[in-house]
Amino acid sequence: MQLSLAELGPRIGATVRGDGALCVTGVAELSTATPGQLAFYSNAKYKKDLAATRAGAVIVAAADEVFVPAGSARLIAPQAYVSFAKASAIFHRDLAVEAGVQRGALVDDSAQVHVTAAISPGAYVGPGAKIGARTTLHAGARVLDCAVVGEGCTLWPGAVVRERCIVGDRVILQPNCVIGSDGFGFAFDMEGDGQGPVHRKVPQAGIVRIEDDVEVGACTCIDRATLGETVIGRGTKIDNLVQIGHNVKVGALSLIVAQVGISGSTELGMGVVLAGQVGVAGHVKIGDGARVGGQSGVFNDLPAGVTVSGTPTRPHGQYLRSLAALPHLPDLLKEMRKLAQRVQELELQAKERT
Amino acid sequence: MQLSLAELGPRIGATVRGDGALCVTGVAELSTATPGQLAFYSNAKYKKDLAATRAGAVIVAAADEVFVPAGSARLIAPQAYVSFAKASAIFHRDLAVEAGVQRGALVDDSAQVHVTAAISPGAYVGPGAKIGARTTLHAGARVLDCAVVGEGCTLWPGAVVRERCIVGDRVILQPNCVIGSDGFGFAFDMEGDGQGPVHRKVPQAGIVRIEDDVEVGACTCIDRATLGETVIGRGTKIDNLVQIGHNVKVGALSLIVAQVGISGSTELGMGVVLAGQVGVAGHVKIGDGARVGGQSGVFNDLPAGVTVSGTPTRPHGQYLRSLAALPHLPDLLKEMRKLAQRVQELELQAKERT
Amino acid sequence: MQLSLAELGPRIGATVRGDGALCVTGVAELSTATPGQLAFYSNAKYKKDLAATRAGAVIVAAADEVFVPAGSARLIAPQAYVSFAKASAIFHRDLAVEAGVQRGALVDDSAQVHVTAAISPGAYVGPGAKIGARTTLHAGARVLDCAVVGEGCTLWPGAVVRERCIVGDRVILQPNCVIGSDGFGFAFDMEGDGQGPVHRKVPQAGIVRIEDDVEVGACTCIDRATLGETVIGRGTKIDNLVQIGHNVKVGALSLIVAQVGISGSTELGMGVVLAGQVGVAGHVKIGDGARVGGQSGVFNDLPAGVTVSGTPTRPHGQYLRSLAALPHLPDLLKEMRKLAQRVQELELQAKERT
Repeated sequence: MQLSLAELGPRIGATVRGDGALCVTGVAELSTATPGQLAFYSNAKYKKDLAATRAGAVIVAAADEVFVPAGSARLIAPQAYVSFAKASAIFHRDLAVEAGVQRGALVDDSAQVHVTAAISPGAYVGPGAKIGARTTLHAGARVLDCAVVGEGCTLWPGAVVRERCIVGDRVILQPNCVIGSDGFGFAFDMEGDGQGPVHRKVPQAGIVRIEDDVEVGACTCIDRATLGETVIGRGTKIDNLVQIGHNVKVGALSLIVAQVGISGSTELGMGVVLAGQVGVAGHVKIGDGARVGGQSGVFNDLPAGVTVSGTPTRPHGQYLRSLAALPHLPDLLKEMRKLAQRVQELELQAKERT
Repeated sequence: MQLSLAELGPRIGATVRGDGALCVTGVAELSTATPGQLAFYSNAKYKKDLAATRAGAVIVAAADEVFVPAGSARLIAPQAYVSFAKASAIFHRDLAVEAGVQRGALVDDSAQVHVTAAISPGAYVGPGAKIGARTTLHAGARVLDCAVVGEGCTLWPGAVVRERCIVGDRVILQPNCVIGSDGFGFAFDMEGDGQGPVHRKVPQAGIVRIEDDVEVGACTCIDRATLGETVIGRGTKIDNLVQIGHNVKVGALSLIVAQVGISGSTELGMGVVLAGQVGVAGHVKIGDGARVGGQSGVFNDLPAGVTVSGTPTRPHGQYLRSLAALPHLPDLLKEMRKLAQRVQELELQAKERT
Repeated sequence: MQLSLAELGPRIGATVRGDGALCVTGVAELSTATPGQLAFYSNAKYKKDLAATRAGAVIVAAADEVFVPAGSARLIAPQAYVSFAKASAIFHRDLAVEAGVQRGALVDDSAQVHVTAAISPGAYVGPGAKIGARTTLHAGARVLDCAVVGEGCTLWPGAVVRERCIVGDRVILQPNCVIGSDGFGFAFDMEGDGQGPVHRKVPQAGIVRIEDDVEVGACTCIDRATLGETVIGRGTKIDNLVQIGHNVKVGALSLIVAQVGISGSTELGMGVVLAGQVGVAGHVKIGDGARVGGQSGVFNDLPAGVTVSGTPTRPHGQYLRSLAALPHLPDLLKEMRKLAQRVQELELQAKERT
């Protein structure tokens, strides 16, 4: 497959500057792109790679056009990274699996699998489960009893959708992620059943509902609700190894980066961003568009639109100032002691004088 | 299934206040419960939901009875959450799988599977492994060679019990958890095998032993011992994405919340609570009933019964005071500088005077 | 199997002190070893166990020989832990699986599986994939289309190698680890496709390349590159539940402990050590031999050879001093206020005097 820049430009929302007849066959990194490939520039850390690139054309913001070497055409784009995503998608082929239930797939007789869905060897669809049109279950993906998976979804190997959970359309489940594990709900029973105290399991009778266009990362776990639903809102993207507790509600278009943990019954608004390794306590509300810096601990409600960091969170700038001050603390303690002595001496002198 | 409150009360350790003849068909959240359902109240964050509930009856502590609206009967319980757990369990049906080795299950001829156990399609039982009575292996659960799983256990899809590990009775393994992965044991060998240094693998020849009534969360990993056993004590509950290193011993009835990491050879007593994302160093001893706050780092032994937080841990109240003081640090540095100048001036004045 | 100490010594790089004719049948912990077994001592925390050991012989550094009880022979070793690893490996048998594609294994007709490789029931090898000599795929390991796995590898249950990824020789993939999940790459598109903003997926078109002698822990996730390769260098060992983002390059012989997260495009040199739960930001360079303490947050490049901790990282000693000073901060704030008052009084007195 090859496309001229003139054909490509309008499809990716970019304006061609240079030879529109030039054909490219795919996208590549600045440092490895050949004259037949398209590259992309936006991060100043890669300015050297840009200067040395052999790419036939570079997608770039208007402001950065001057840095593109003379040998490369430019595709000027107001949202450069978006245009790159579109270009890459045009040339990219997802791993194709033939439609139908393949030999070695395990599909219960009572399951409803759309005729255009592809069920690979070793994938499993349980009793009463439904799989929508054009959805792919790769080897070892598993959809348990009465769960529903929508249209155009991709379930990678080892992805699990437990009983009765609901997955919308165009959802991607990366390998070994878990939808609908039991929430961590135990009632400490002093009496037990006559043999001393026990942690009595609270049945996790609810489900997980995942709306359209969500992506769930590898080994990410989303617990089913104790009662009712744990919900992941439309278009939200979740990275790898994230923990989402029972009864959590995540709004639309949020971004949850790797290794974040969200405790039970917490609610995130729309467009929330949680950076890597953040921990959020239970029963907390985080407003629309709030952004939380990496490794922070969120214990209290956050209003919409804030950018916060630290444990507990505070405005990001304030947090950075505290961090910068921290290494001075040991010296501060010493200076304090010295200063107190000097003040004491002054006080003694003053006393002597009176 | 439906039960009158008069029947239900004694079974869940609660006293009925209101119409004992009222029948309920299940439990639900305060906000969604219908007059034919039972709800539960204990967290003050849900007082508004309680006031507006349409539930036929509410399980509640005596002290909270006054907040229940007139339209709902009360089930007064000394351990309200325990009574809720019992009520929910009465109405809840776990996903049932038919007993026997089902078509598509992979069971080695030398394995011993109890006739009442249920082995789903795609589940695997290796050579010499034993599966106890009434235990369920869901699709894609795997028990490797000579491992032993007790009675009444549930292994969800993708749960792995590696060779020779021992799992007690009534144990629940959530999806994609791993029992018996190799511990992280390498000896740095300067000489290698003649081609420069290597990290030489130390064989992880031991096992994991999981006692009765333990629950292990989704994608949680428990490493086998280098030699001997890694042990998870009776009735302990482990959340999702937890790492437990080789040769760790966890006492009975402990609670280990999501994303905790426990390094090798560390020992936890009975009833220890580690909140989310805590990290514990290797070769540490944590006493019975110790409680560690979220995201803390434990580097030293902890005595029984303490409640600690921070890195390194200190008493929780002290930790909170430090956290509260931290944002004042940048200003403190400035004030210190000013104060030092003022003292210097006073000293100069004093000098001039003498 | 049994070996005399005289036979064993040279094979593990140790010198026998005591009865070289004594035969041992395996290795065990100091506390449980019998007179027919070999134990090992290096950590002072286990001095009591050493004093009480019944082991036939103890591997020990020359400096520690004096602590070994008279009843045990000594195997004096310059690299005691390396000698222990070698001894343990001599007596240890990895779980053996018969060579060949076993009944219940799912191997595509177009896959190339070496005749000496062992493919267990429920393991999957996709179209065009290659499996090298003496490599074992345990039940439920999965190698997708056109991926390549080298010689002498072990893939435990649930380990996933996604399409086109490349795995070298003697690589060990612990259960449920994921090689080649999609990186977390989305371009925020204000316009979407006419129905409001979306996070547009950037195709993750690259691969993961894992060099020889690497070990990857259980439930660890290594994302494929957006373009090009994510690389794990020769002999590097990665613990459980680690997240490695797209386009990361990890040098040879590094050690990455459990629950570490490394963001996209970051580069680690050779012999880097990241302790547990460390987070590393994207596009960062960490020099050869740098060591980062547990739970640290790395936001900036680190030069070779440093030992750092904290967020952001600073020299480890400095970090410890800050940690030690932190609990004094609340008192410091109070003292500061008192001292300021005393200075003010002195100033007033001085003013009165003039």
